Amino acid sequence: MQTSNKLYKFKEELPLTSGQTLDGFELMVECYGNLNQEKNNAILLNHAFSGSHHAAGKHNGTLGWWDDFVGPNKILDTNKFFIVSANNIGSCFGSSGPISLDKNGKRYNADFPEISVKDWVQAQKLLADKLKIQTWKLVVGGSLGGMQSLQWAIDFPDMVEKVAIIAAAATVDSQNIALNEVEREVIRKDSYFYNGNYYEHGKVPTKGLKAARMLGHITYLSAQNMEQRFGRKLQDQQTKLDDTINFEVENYLQYQGGKFADVFDANSYILLTKVMDGFDPSAEYDNNLVKTFKNISAEMLIISFASDWMFPPARGKEMLKAAIKANKKCSFVEFEGAYGHDSFLYAEDNYPDTISTFLEGKL
Amino acid sequence: MQTSNKLYKFKEELPLTSGQTLDGFELMVECYGNLNQEKNNAILLNHAFSGSHHAAGKHNGTLGWWDDFVGPNKILDTNKFFIVSANNIGSCFGSSGPISLDKNGKRYNADFPEISVKDWVQAQKLLADKLKIQTWKLVVGGSLGGMQSLQWAIDFPDMVEKVAIIAAAATVDSQNIALNEVEREVIRKDSYFYNGNYYEHGKVPTKGLKAARMLGHITYLSAQNMEQRFGRKLQDQQTKLDDTINFEVENYLQYQGGKFADVFDANSYILLTKVMDGFDPSAEYDNNLVKTFKNISAEMLIISFASDWMFPPARGKEMLKAAIKANKKCSFVEFEGAYGHDSFLYAEDNYPDTISTFLEGKL
Repeated sequence: MQTSNKLYKFKEELPLTSGQTLDGFELMVECYGNLNQEKNNAILLNHAFSGSHHAAGKHNGTLGWWDDFVGPNKILDTNKFFIVSANNIGSCFGSSGPISLDKNGKRYNADFPEISVKDWVQAQKLLADKLKIQTWKLVVGGSLGGMQSLQWAIDFPDMVEKVAIIAAAATVDSQNIALNEVEREVIRKDSYFYNGNYYEHGKVPTKGLKAARMLGHITYLSAQNMEQRFGRKLQDQQTKLDDTINFEVENYLQYQGGKFADVFDANSYILLTKVMDGFDPSAEYDNNLVKTFKNISAEMLIISFASDWMFPPARGKEMLKAAIKANKKCSFVEFEGAYGHDSFLYAEDNYPDTISTFLEGKL
Repeated sequence: MQTSNKLYKFKEELPLTSGQTLDGFELMVECYGNLNQEKNNAILLNHAFSGSHHAAGKHNGTLGWWDDFVGPNKILDTNKFFIVSANNIGSCFGSSGPISLDKNGKRYNADFPEISVKDWVQAQKLLADKLKIQTWKLVVGGSLGGMQSLQWAIDFPDMVEKVAIIAAAATVDSQNIALNEVEREVIRKDSYFYNGNYYEHGKVPTKGLKAARMLGHITYLSAQNMEQRFGRKLQDQQTKLDDTINFEVENYLQYQGGKFADVFDANSYILLTKVMDGFDPSAEYDNNLVKTFKNISAEMLIISFASDWMFPPARGKEMLKAAIKANKKCSFVEFEGAYGHDSFLYAEDNYPDTISTFLEGKL
């Protein structure tokens, strides 16, 4: 499947939860399949932290991050459904973010306003209006995209028929915040960071961004997965990226971190980790998740992976319990997951079937 | 208890497992209690990664790291035992390490040779000779100090009557290496690191060292402990260390990291994480832990903490199983531990009693 993206421009002001306002914004969007006449076959797909709108098919030679799931005769069947995937505000893949220009033609850099998951949902609501979509058959996403899907079901209950929240949690915990803070710290303290105004100095803080991603990458894998894949295997001399490396796992992380640092933006990295840390839909409802979930009309599916260190199944069950107490229709399914937190990306085990069954109303 | 330290100088060459040689070395040592006439009441205490010889009592107003356990009428009773605690080679608290001068009066910096746990044991053997100690009643330590205690029991079976290996493992796993590599990366990429020769440039890479410690600190705590202690509590405005901070846990890590960076040496940090990564006593015995443990004569006690994320109880049981297969006398005790990996530092639950009982031969 060949895909193409489209930039949607919004001239209206977007009031943000921080109290600030975006004077217009842009969303880079990919769509797959066709919206039917009744406009009742639309699915909204939300990407994770470092993901983008490019979820499926080939674009410039690169397969989308959920290509296993999205396409003709796949789980999210493009012969039946119209699937919308937008890069989130604050990211660096085409939508408005720190690398964009403000209304005066000046690059935002570190001055891009503070963003929340609620803001993303508001922006996507305006996108839905533009696309003449009044209800989503399904809103689905993994990790931060799962959190965003949950926020949709809470904020626009009449628009969401079903919601699938995968490898996610109702908030991040103290350890997640702590790890994110270390990642931000190493970026901020890169001597090329210049308080976020690095482009104005003709520099990019790739060293800090690389180290931050190395740490992030560890949190996406399980200890068991790393042990099976790398164990204590030594890196052979010829392919060492650096003389200081002894073990394969070090070389792997150096490579992955370096690759990421070449394509991602440091201010976006800081901003998006803050979005994740700040996510807490219950904050508007007396910090009571049951009360929060009472708002939801959608049928809910929560999927957790036992090998997920970031959001282990206990965090999925926490949402299930709140849904039960709020008297909502909610299924919870746990898979082992061979890839830790990243298991949500791979069509393995009965995980894809579970989503199909849910979508067909048979769960 | 007031304590004082003493610098022991060794003029002999110390051949290292790396193939290099140290032309003499120094050990900074604290001793508690008195060696009896029969010289059969000596205990060797091994410190963890960032610890020092200062294990008990007050020195310059600071209590030692295991003061809960070491002193008159304490678990390691200084009325009965003579306890020896030495700063390890490669560290930065008085023993030979990167900040020391070589035989030409030049600071080692990054050129300090690669060190192993076996080298530490060899150096301590020379210290035992100097102190006229032929057998240790007990060799004990937590974390990296537990690994060092295990290496003692393997390398000098005739000298070790009992060994207590606490919050440790027979090797570090792939995830531990990965996290250590991120810590090294952020130090090496500090613009003040200068390939480890920072003192020659009149600089110190405190930013990198601080971030490294922030990450290390997270691995010493359990997710549950952090959740209970900090949760998602916001930091109040007055006591924020930085404007970018939102949550208490961020402030806490910033504070801890900063404090550590003021006293520790960056080259030592890199060197000591490499010591930890490289620890693998079975490497000399066909990578067979059972075969390795066949060497041991000491009675063994292995203590793990359920909340320990770094070396969880499964890693303790791995050693227990090898000990059983090697037909050794070995006890394994698991505690919940309120402080994650750091639980080995605190005299809580039945943990201290377990060590007493073991020492008295009643376990």
